[in-house]
Amino acid sequence: MIETPYLLFLGDAPDQLAAKVAQGIRDWRPDNAIGQFRMEGCKADVGLPDMDLNAARDAGAKTLVIGVANRGGVISAAWKKVLVQALEEGFDLASGLHNLLRDEEDLAAVARATGRRLHDVRVPDVTYPIANGVRRSGKRCLAVGTDCSVGKMYTSLAVDREMKARGLKSTFRATGQTGILITGNGVPLDAVIADFMAGSIEWLTPDNDADHWDHIEGQGSLFHVSYSGVTMALIHGGQPDALILSHEPTRTHMRGLPDYDLPSLEALRDAALPLARIANPACQVVGVSINTAAMGEDAALSYLAEVEKCMGLPTVDPFRQGAARLADALEAL
Amino acid sequence: MIETPYLLFLGDAPDQLAAKVAQGIRDWRPDNAIGQFRMEGCKADVGLPDMDLNAARDAGAKTLVIGVANRGGVISAAWKKVLVQALEEGFDLASGLHNLLRDEEDLAAVARATGRRLHDVRVPDVTYPIANGVRRSGKRCLAVGTDCSVGKMYTSLAVDREMKARGLKSTFRATGQTGILITGNGVPLDAVIADFMAGSIEWLTPDNDADHWDHIEGQGSLFHVSYSGVTMALIHGGQPDALILSHEPTRTHMRGLPDYDLPSLEALRDAALPLARIANPACQVVGVSINTAAMGEDAALSYLAEVEKCMGLPTVDPFRQGAARLADALEAL
Repeated sequence: MIETPYLLFLGDAPDQLAAKVAQGIRDWRPDNAIGQFRMEGCKADVGLPDMDLNAARDAGAKTLVIGVANRGGVISAAWKKVLVQALEEGFDLASGLHNLLRDEEDLAAVARATGRRLHDVRVPDVTYPIANGVRRSGKRCLAVGTDCSVGKMYTSLAVDREMKARGLKSTFRATGQTGILITGNGVPLDAVIADFMAGSIEWLTPDNDADHWDHIEGQGSLFHVSYSGVTMALIHGGQPDALILSHEPTRTHMRGLPDYDLPSLEALRDAALPLARIANPACQVVGVSINTAAMGEDAALSYLAEVEKCMGLPTVDPFRQGAARLADALEAL
Repeated sequence: MIETPYLLFLGDAPDQLAAKVAQGIRDWRPDNAIGQFRMEGCKADVGLPDMDLNAARDAGAKTLVIGVANRGGVISAAWKKVLVQALEEGFDLASGLHNLLRDEEDLAAVARATGRRLHDVRVPDVTYPIANGVRRSGKRCLAVGTDCSVGKMYTSLAVDREMKARGLKSTFRATGQTGILITGNGVPLDAVIADFMAGSIEWLTPDNDADHWDHIEGQGSLFHVSYSGVTMALIHGGQPDALILSHEPTRTHMRGLPDYDLPSLEALRDAALPLARIANPACQVVGVSINTAAMGEDAALSYLAEVEKCMGLPTVDPFRQGAARLADALEAL
């Protein structure tokens, strides 16, 4: 569990896209972040007050979260100076970078000396159980995609927000580094040992009130040969009551696999639903979420209408249209 | 690397299935094991002479192999006593358990003091790549099961032995601790980090002669919610040309999951084949392997004939009948 509130470190981000982790926190858990720390030359701005370490600490910030991708996979000397100072002034650090904070000898030494914590959210810090398949109380929804990176996390966060706004019991359950930094906890599923993958998802989504919904962040795709095992573990460990199919219509091949075509939404449904029903025979596909970011308004609306007709399911782009119809479908289940 | 011959440690195995590591060594490398060590309450018997440590040492045994698997892989205090004594009496230890011999402080200390070796065959000693899905030359066969522990490894070892006997190019590719203890190498797949599972299987079964067959040891089952992600990674990382369906007809529920029924062989075929064709569109189901160990001869033969008729595929128990018809089917592909 990462202590909140955060100060978001944007560093020397070369553009807004480089700060997408910080932007995600700002968009989805604004109460978790009280300010942003920008170094000279920073080209990103997530719309929070600019604060130095002292001001943020006085305002109550507990953790400096690295909300920016580092260039070349190296934590630069310029970043280091800020990170060391933050530890010395009482902040914990949290990061989803590939190169770990704990592997930086200077950061590790200062953290030890100051008693502060280094959260590398790509690394599991829990001993997960082997899945036992026992049915759990409460409801669970999982987004499954035709490919990686088609908007599954966004979809789950949007449905969670909509259900909360309706006064319903709802929790977003993070399974990747961005989601974990947004919510402050979760399972870094792609770094879990194979035998414990499904068990980690059972652990993440325990028994709950009968009318509570967990929205489980999806990973990979059953059709992506590099990561399909991770997706499978989510389907069986999550034992979802509801699946939302996710798709990005302009993708020309599977992400990183130029020789692999994307499946149709029908093929995704026909693969995912029977597998999900092994763990939860009542599972239903309740809707379709399309990422139309690369399409104009008319083309997007026309595409959504066409998919809705073919699939016979509520079909929305939650970014353009909100997630109300997906939440309706879950409420109706 | 592991000194032979072995004394096989069966511990307090609760049933015969729990000793499948020892049974596999006994079946496939009988010359390597001179005896079995059973504690009070042991319910397994692999048909070797019962020996205590002194007798086994006098008979020439070099390594005590932990031939029994516990769910979760815990080394109990009762086991410890035997293992410490074995080190003190001059045995090396070899284990495929999740919790490592080397992580047990007392075992590590005694091993250091006595100069004995601790072999943890479950620990990956390779940095595996992320799968790239590129098609590889050579042929690959994977056994997939209706459940865990239904005879997949046995089937692959039997087909490999049959093809070698015919002078064909054939390699058994181990993916679990038993196979690794038998062959001396392989990928301990259930201990691999999630993101690298499929890549480890690509690494294990590289480009080969066009007429060479890899027989990839299966793991888990698409229908076993604890381990289905591991099975999925084998199907996509292995990109098999051929699948063999494996089943144990007397199983009353999925192993360790009392609320889960086994699927039919038709359901297994219909789940596995479309998923396999994502990575290899030419993949075929070539045969069925039934473990009839718990059935009488007449009942077994009658059951095999019935399945063969229903499935329209060569159906054998390779233990009773040999794997010739499965090898025929692969040769005909």
